[in-house]
Amino acid sequence: MTMPKRDTYTPDSLLTVAVQVFNERGYDGTSMEHLSKAAGISKSSIYHHVRGKEELLRRAIARALDHLFAILDEPEAVNGRAVDRLEHVTRRTAEVLMAELPYVTLLLRVHGNTDTERWALARRREFDQQVAALLKQAAAEGDLRADVDVRLATRLLFGMINSIVEWYRPERGTLAAREEVAEAVAKMAFAGLRV
Amino acid sequence: MTMPKRDTYTPDSLLTVAVQVFNERGYDGTSMEHLSKAAGISKSSIYHHVRGKEELLRRAIARALDHLFAILDEPEAVNGRAVDRLEHVTRRTAEVLMAELPYVTLLLRVHGNTDTERWALARRREFDQQVAALLKQAAAEGDLRADVDVRLATRLLFGMINSIVEWYRPERGTLAAREEVAEAVAKMAFAGLRV
Repeated sequence: MTMPKRDTYTPDSLLTVAVQVFNERGYDGTSMEHLSKAAGISKSSIYHHVRGKEELLRRAIARALDHLFAILDEPEAVNGRAVDRLEHVTRRTAEVLMAELPYVTLLLRVHGNTDTERWALARRREFDQQVAALLKQAAAEGDLRADVDVRLATRLLFGMINSIVEWYRPERGTLAAREEVAEAVAKMAFAGLRV
Repeated sequence: MTMPKRDTYTPDSLLTVAVQVFNERGYDGTSMEHLSKAAGISKSSIYHHVRGKEELLRRAIARALDHLFAILDEPEAVNGRAVDRLEHVTRRTAEVLMAELPYVTLLLRVHGNTDTERWALARRREFDQQVAALLKQAAAEGDLRADVDVRLATRLLFGMINSIVEWYRPERGTLAAREEVAEAVAKMAFAGLRV
């Protein structure tokens, strides 16, 4: 038997551990026992910080959502033609996904089995709808090609952005590397690969 | 207790059932018991058709791979400038993904825990590499933008195509609907959304 670690966790550092376990085992497959083992502190020490695993999920998801929704308030997302705002939001969403990778990964994998998960899905849908509205406006302003359905374009755009979680490795992720990936997404989606 | 169904399965119809169960429960989480229940025939009846669940996985994956690799032999994938061949392969890969949705979904979710899964991953990598080689050639011919890394572009291209499995519903999937989605992917990736 190993000695339990002295509990020096802050809410943030405990969240880091929990999110890693959630992403490895799935949220449903994670017990307080798993969290206790991964953190190296007793279950009652964890209960000292949070009411349970659902609170950890809620905090983690809230962190991802706060970063994502903050993009929509950035000046470049508010001012100018819709197509330029949309391109900014696309680039920044990719950047946030990489900078907050474990949190956004968790958000993207949520199923909807608990209240927290259903709230996460609803908020995520809200974000998607705000981006879809930008696409619609850009199309109405004549800046988007008319031969691709707006709903379909929204799905493919998020499909491309969200696929980054499948291969992006944050340990190699300098800010410059993140910006290169986000630029590539924006260029491909809006200008296309063909010269 | 319900009466077991008379075993009227063909290899193909049994595969259809197995693939559905694999996609619902995950391959690792599927037992012969689950397959027997879903098919409505006894385990020994299933063993009459196949040696075990790994053979069903291999057949299902082989079906997806055969369809995907066949694309690379189509005249439009062989003749002409690399960029046009690449655009054809992109469109057709999206179409095959939708037409063979359960089989390709299974292929995309394989982990690499068994010999069959490792073989599937290796073949999938081979397909990706052949597409990456086309991208490289198109870049060398000056038809692709030079400011997006070829490896990154390959990943984003597959990311966009593969994301279709997340939302595409085959029951609404007429040939025309599939062609519209595939066209949208090709247009977005090669010409971009911006007018």
